[in-house]
Amino acid sequence: MTVVVPSSYRRIVLASRPRGAVLPENFRLETVAVPALADGQLLIRNHYLSLDPYMRGRMSAGKSYAASQALDETMIGGTVGEVVASNHAGFAVGEFVGGMLGWAEMGVSDGLLLRKLDISKIALSAYLGAAGMPGMAAWYGFNKIMQAKAGETIVVSAASGAVGSVVGQLAKLRGCRAVGIAGGAEKCAYVVDELGFDACVDYKAGNLAADLKAATPDGVDAIFENVGGECFDAALGRSNAFGRVALCGMMAGYDGSDVSIRSARALLINRLTLRGFIITEHQDCWPEGLAELGGLIATGQLKYRESVAQGLASAPDTFIGLLKGLNFGKQLVKLI
Amino acid sequence: MTVVVPSSYRRIVLASRPRGAVLPENFRLETVAVPALADGQLLIRNHYLSLDPYMRGRMSAGKSYAASQALDETMIGGTVGEVVASNHAGFAVGEFVGGMLGWAEMGVSDGLLLRKLDISKIALSAYLGAAGMPGMAAWYGFNKIMQAKAGETIVVSAASGAVGSVVGQLAKLRGCRAVGIAGGAEKCAYVVDELGFDACVDYKAGNLAADLKAATPDGVDAIFENVGGECFDAALGRSNAFGRVALCGMMAGYDGSDVSIRSARALLINRLTLRGFIITEHQDCWPEGLAELGGLIATGQLKYRESVAQGLASAPDTFIGLLKGLNFGKQLVKLI
Repeated sequence: MTVVVPSSYRRIVLASRPRGAVLPENFRLETVAVPALADGQLLIRNHYLSLDPYMRGRMSAGKSYAASQALDETMIGGTVGEVVASNHAGFAVGEFVGGMLGWAEMGVSDGLLLRKLDISKIALSAYLGAAGMPGMAAWYGFNKIMQAKAGETIVVSAASGAVGSVVGQLAKLRGCRAVGIAGGAEKCAYVVDELGFDACVDYKAGNLAADLKAATPDGVDAIFENVGGECFDAALGRSNAFGRVALCGMMAGYDGSDVSIRSARALLINRLTLRGFIITEHQDCWPEGLAELGGLIATGQLKYRESVAQGLASAPDTFIGLLKGLNFGKQLVKLI
Repeated sequence: MTVVVPSSYRRIVLASRPRGAVLPENFRLETVAVPALADGQLLIRNHYLSLDPYMRGRMSAGKSYAASQALDETMIGGTVGEVVASNHAGFAVGEFVGGMLGWAEMGVSDGLLLRKLDISKIALSAYLGAAGMPGMAAWYGFNKIMQAKAGETIVVSAASGAVGSVVGQLAKLRGCRAVGIAGGAEKCAYVVDELGFDACVDYKAGNLAADLKAATPDGVDAIFENVGGECFDAALGRSNAFGRVALCGMMAGYDGSDVSIRSARALLINRLTLRGFIITEHQDCWPEGLAELGGLIATGQLKYRESVAQGLASAPDTFIGLLKGLNFGKQLVKLI
């Protein structure tokens, strides 16, 4: 296989930290030289970049899951791509790999955190969504925290998104009543008609609490929370005794908005168990989870939807849109 | 033993449901006839009535842990007393028993929910405090939810109270750093000087967050929450990764005040596990817990303090004071 390796590639670095809402000027597009590979290194051309809400937390100097994203360094991010040069015995040119090479067209790796990807039955891009980190977040929260049984009712916010869509479909496969919360009639229709949820409430319609009550006549036994704020309060307000809450994200607060839990009394009165988690800390579960998710995708039992932006330069605006919920399904940037 | 059984006794019933703060007129003192005992029944003269914050929840028509207190019925409450007449083969006149006979000088029981009390090493009143339900709430939350290890830092609110005082002492016995939150310099001094906590922060002093930060230089690994509101937010703001929260009460909200969790992001960022619980639902743990607590009390390793009001008629005002934090230690009403 002949691969032409260019002498330079483009990347996006964090130029400044946002104060409140993320702005395009918080990012800077740069062209950098492709470095010479040392022994044990390989060069990867990224096909897709994943954009995810957690990146917003990394952009701030404050405490988040992990260390802040450094200024003037390549923005953190999951990627899938193809090996285009290799001084590593374990990776050959032409192989497909997933990694965390960031907002960049190419990247050098020592192979340590790479995952080889089989694209014979699963599309390459899916490894950034339902067959990757978002899928695992859903799988872990659903199986390890929500522990929902057949016949129970679950609620998941951002239900049309990369994580929420998997939560609801896993719940349906388990025999639960799956109720989503999403923004807008189009997303809600997709969640019910395409993904097979039992109901989906449009939080933008202005009657969130009443609509969720109507959609959960037997209350709510388990909540998967991606958003926080009024979505979370509405779900807590419907909670049953001994309910479980998997707290995966609070997107509503990423721009500094208030995400106070106003239904806090429900945690006590209904004796709820709530656990916050970050999926990268549970690597021991990934082999089992990814095998199950991959099997469901390959057999068509787990559906997903992607929003694909074109070209690295589109990443900042696309990311800003993601934080506003403008995406519809897993947000990707196609790099080649 | 000759016991004179009077022909009537006094009780306090719920006359009306409070709107916001509890008022004396929500209660009514009545005199009722001592009923004739059926086969299998016994008559108990209550020596002490326990006043506890949970009673506030029962006074409302809304959903709480359990069914609402019925209007015009004896107010619910834990009691300890002496058998004064018995048609029950398992209970003899003169024996001491604990039960839930409510705000009343006497009560009839079929023996089912009674606990025989050994007052040779433990004072009768302690069975309503550290050797009873409040002690068990502390024991369960500490051992089953907080799961604190030696060297970890724990924070407990209402630290001088019947529950909080036991939490901190169990933590010290475990080798933890125990930090309390209490209202006023006198209570804080007691928590440190008498109970042996490492520090106690006075939330009334106006610098709760800063003072708690100073008292928890290594952050907080586990929280026992009795109060909610600003106390809870301050503790969450100091939480370490993978911290645990035992949510036992939200006294700050019992009169309708806002107990929103403003530090909600800490639950996610620090991947906390929170569990609300009500100790009467965990009867399987009581034998083990009560045995341990009784042993610690009998040997002087577990200290407690009581606020004792005199006479049944004092119960309403004393209860209102309890909700305002006017008590200092376990609040009791001495009935004879």
